[in-house]
Order: sequence, then C-alpha cells, then structure tokens
Amino acid sequence: MLDRIPNKEDIIGAAGIIKPYVNRTPVLTSATFNKRYNSELYFKCENFQKVGAFKSRGAVHALLSIPEPDRINGVCTHSSGNHAQALARAAGLFGVPAYIVMPENSPQVKIDAVRNYGGRITFCKPNLEAREATLKEVQKQTGAIEVHPYDNYDIIAGQATAAKELLEEEPDLEMVLCPVGGGGLLAGTALAVQYFSANRAKVIACEPDGADDAFRSFQKGKIVPSVSPHTIADGLLTSLGKRNFPIIQDYVMEIVTVSDASIIEAMRLIYERIKIVIEPSSAVPLAAIAEQKIAVSGKKTGVIISGGNVDLKKLPF
Amino acid sequence: MLDRIPNKEDIIGAAGIIKPYVNRTPVLTSATFNKRYNSELYFKCENFQKVGAFKSRGAVHALLSIPEPDRINGVCTHSSGNHAQALARAAGLFGVPAYIVMPENSPQVKIDAVRNYGGRITFCKPNLEAREATLKEVQKQTGAIEVHPYDNYDIIAGQATAAKELLEEEPDLEMVLCPVGGGGLLAGTALAVQYFSANRAKVIACEPDGADDAFRSFQKGKIVPSVSPHTIADGLLTSLGKRNFPIIQDYVMEIVTVSDASIIEAMRLIYERIKIVIEPSSAVPLAAIAEQKIAVSGKKTGVIISGGNVDLKKLPF
Repeated sequence: MLDRIPNKEDIIGAAGIIKPYVNRTPVLTSATFNKRYNSELYFKCENFQKVGAFKSRGAVHALLSIPEPDRINGVCTHSSGNHAQALARAAGLFGVPAYIVMPENSPQVKIDAVRNYGGRITFCKPNLEAREATLKEVQKQTGAIEVHPYDNYDIIAGQATAAKELLEEEPDLEMVLCPVGGGGLLAGTALAVQYFSANRAKVIACEPDGADDAFRSFQKGKIVPSVSPHTIADGLLTSLGKRNFPIIQDYVMEIVTVSDASIIEAMRLIYERIKIVIEPSSAVPLAAIAEQKIAVSGKKTGVIISGGNVDLKKLPF
Repeated sequence: MLDRIPNKEDIIGAAGIIKPYVNRTPVLTSATFNKRYNSELYFKCENFQKVGAFKSRGAVHALLSIPEPDRINGVCTHSSGNHAQALARAAGLFGVPAYIVMPENSPQVKIDAVRNYGGRITFCKPNLEAREATLKEVQKQTGAIEVHPYDNYDIIAGQATAAKELLEEEPDLEMVLCPVGGGGLLAGTALAVQYFSANRAKVIACEPDGADDAFRSFQKGKIVPSVSPHTIADGLLTSLGKRNFPIIQDYVMEIVTVSDASIIEAMRLIYERIKIVIEPSSAVPLAAIAEQKIAVSGKKTGVIISGGNVDLKKLPF
C-alpha cells in the first residue's frame, strides 16, 4: 500500500498487477472531429473498461495492494457509482466482501450494477459529510478496510495505467485532456504523462461550471471544496482529494470549465460520430474543445473517455 | 467488374483494394452476454466503419471496380441510407459525382450525411418501384453508372471482407450470425465463411418478422418479394437481390425471424452492455439469440454488427 506519490516504477508495477483483470481499451478517432477542430484527436475509450469505467483499474490495484490477511473483513467505500461497481467487482474476483455507501440519488443503473457484482449497499444523503459519516459507521460494524475512490495513492497508480496505455499507442501526443472530479483519474493521468510521454505532453483538466472546485482550488493554490455542486456530469460532483491536489498542482498545466449545455452537445456528438455510449463526465473534454477553451488546432491530442455508465432512459439529448 | 459469384481470390483482392479507404473495425465481447447465453460471442463492430456501416466496404470496392473512363459521368444508386452515404463518400474520395435516389421517409440523419459527403439527392416514394423508376430517370439525365446497394457481385465481394477480418481474429468460430435485408452483407458473409472459416462455421441469417421476405424466399426456394414491409430495423426493408439469393441458398444454413420488440430490447442491451451506438438492424442477431431461435450455448459465435447510423432523438427505448 503506497504512502507516497506513485513513481514511474509504481505505475509500471500497477499495470502488470491489474493486467489479467482489466481490459486494454481501444483508442478511437473521428475523421469528422479531426476535420472540424483541425487536430488529431485520440479517444482512449474507458467506457469499454470492465464495469464500464476507468475505475476498475484503480479498484483492482488498490484491492491487490492490501495485504491478504488485512482483506478478510472486506473493503468499503463511498461512491456515486462507478468506483462502487469497480470495487464490488474487484472484491468479488478475490472472494472479499465489499460494503458500499452510495448517495440515495445515484442512478438506478449504477445501484443495480453494484448489487449484481455482489456489493452490499448502504444509502446516505448526497453530500460528502453524510457519505463519510455513514462509511465510518459501516466500517465500525464490519471491520472492513476503506478504499477511497480517489484520495488513495494505489488508486491513483491504477488510474494512471489508462494514460500509460494511450501513450504506448500514441507516444508523441502534445496534449492530454482529462475530466476532473475527485482527481484520481487526473492525478494518475498527469503522472503517467510526466513519466511516459515522449514530448512531456501538456495535461489539461476539464470540469463542469457547476462543479468547479478543482478550477477554484487550482487558482487559489489550496483546496476549495464544492458546495452544492450541480451538473449533468454526475461522476464529477466530488471535491478534490488531499493526495490528488498536490500532484495536480505540480503536473497539470491548466484547468478549464464548461457549461452543462456544452457537455450535453458534446455527449450527443460523441454518440453520433464515434458511435460509443458514454456518460456525461466523459464528454467534458470535447465540450472544452467545442467551447474553444483549449486550443487543439494543429496539436496531436489525447482525450480520456472516462466511462459509459448512463441511464439510457434518461439521455439528456 | 465481376459478372459471377466472387471466389476466394476475388474476396482477398477486394480486401487489398479497399484497405486504404476503410477501417479495420474492432471485435468486442461482453462478459455479461457470454454468461447469460453460455457462449462466446464476438461482435464485429461495423458501426465503427467509415460512414458508420459495413456499406463502405462494398461501395469503395464497387467504385474502384468500374474502369476509370466509365466513371466520368458519375455513379448512382437508390438506397434507404447507409449505401447512399457510403457511395457518396467513396465517389468523393476519387472526384466522381454520386447521384443518390432516397425514399422520402429516410431518417434525417442519413439525408444530412449523404449531403455532407457531397451526394446529390433525388427523393422518391418509399417503395421499390418508385426507387427504380426514379433511378432510371436520373441515369438517363446524367449518364451515371448504377451501383446497386446489394444486387452486385463487386458489392458482395466488398461486404465479404468484414467476415474475413472477423475470421482472421477468431478463426475457429462455429457460427456466424448476420442480419439480412437485400442480402449483400449476408451473401458476402456466407462466401467469406465458406472460404476462410477453419471449421466451416454455420451461417445463420436473422430477419425482422415484419420484413421476412428472405425467410419466405428461403422456405419456398424462390424469391418472394416484400409487400409493405414494416419494422423498426429500417436498414432491412429491402427485398433479396437475384444475385444474392442463390449464394444464400447454397451457403446459409438457416434464416430465423424476430419481433420488433425483441429487436428493441436487444438494441438497448447492446448500448448498455457493449457501450456502442448501433442502429436497430444491428440488433437483430442478438434478438434471435434472446428469442432462443438460435442455439448458441457452448458455441463460439460471431455476430456482425452492421451499422450505427441512428437518429439519436428517436431511440426506441
């Protein structure tokens, strides 16, 4: 279990450890987007990952980083959805119980999925305080070990493997765009780019206007938690973690924010042109390109598509 | 230009000719489906093909099979959508005009796409007679060469390359499932399986109940055209072609039909589990598995996903 920022060898190690249990996801392109934005855009499609999101990487890595005797009472976490599924699945693979605290407003499709993977759910109010308090209670009752969704170095090292794979296929990317919620994917992506990019590509984080705590924290130089965040990108409601923020400060070039309207339009365009099912969070980087918040013209650019778990009966377009 | 059933070398040749102009599409799997149907299902994802459908393969091959001096006045066709886009794109790549006759009830997204590829559209009533009469008129006025959407051996050889690629990745498939409309994809798939399958996999065609002319033709041993077909699978409304039928009689094991309700449910499942955007026609084989019309249990099975051009504002689930 890592107690410091993952180094290059940690991320190489994580990639090896998780390899049998996760998908190597495809990198897709769109001639239409490349023409429209005068760029070469490479979409790393973690919607095709196990449980439909990058979270499987971190969850498997974190679970396997816990010494076996310590796993006996299970693992637990609070999560708005994808980490919950990912941890439930990872635990299930190794016969470990998974106790999941979920906000009561989580999409039904995510609740069902956690149950299908054998996760034992306790619901709570949809705010960070309620999540943490409920989790403490669950921990007290079960003796399970907490696996935080993002504020955890083993999780960060696991999430970093997505960008590592992207850079193996496209080593000369000049930019990598990534959505930011709690900062697990972003911190991992920033480290992977730092260690594995031939050109030291610039990492730019993309965040909804309605949940812009990362943007504000980045500007102020200290963590500014979200208060009542509101966005269609339900995977990005969480506030930056304290292990994530310093990595982001050091290795992320810029954080830009976009409107929900742009996110919805970008989501629709990705369905229409790339022919993939994504959740709103995954559309945030393309929304930033469309809003001209990021100058991709002439630049070879990677985009992390974070996941595809969406309630198909409630598509916003 | 082929005037006989494509042989093995014709299909190998077609694959080489079209290679620079089409995508080698990915083959995806779903742990959920494999578990549910006790099978190994391999989905060949032609929704990721250029213009969003397998039709790009046949269109590029047919266009390049026309001797250059004969292309000068352009090419023309009638098509409910994907072939129209594919031919317009293929013609555009080589500076050839494309005249497209489309039924007036074609989905708007397909009409827009044909125009974006530079195709010149003439609308007609949505029946075969009107399509053929309008096309004759267009041909008379322009001198363009007709490239039929399916009743054309160069088209069949082009479409065959999808199953050829699938068999390169999964040579020991025991069954290959394919939707059938006019029979271009099905005849091509049947030939590719005949020539390239290690086990002579069985080819099973899947058709909507409401457009079951291929099923009835196969039963009667002669072409029985569709009369007022009606199905959500708008790509499968056409009747079998006369060049396609004999190939299907010789090399297809069985044709099964499914309800529109099953097609819609299978479509939703593919969005939810495989995370890809498909059009209803692509869901017909999975609907046949779900209706237990095809016994896939214990069998390694390929499924051709034909395309992904769907009006996202009118998803049927």
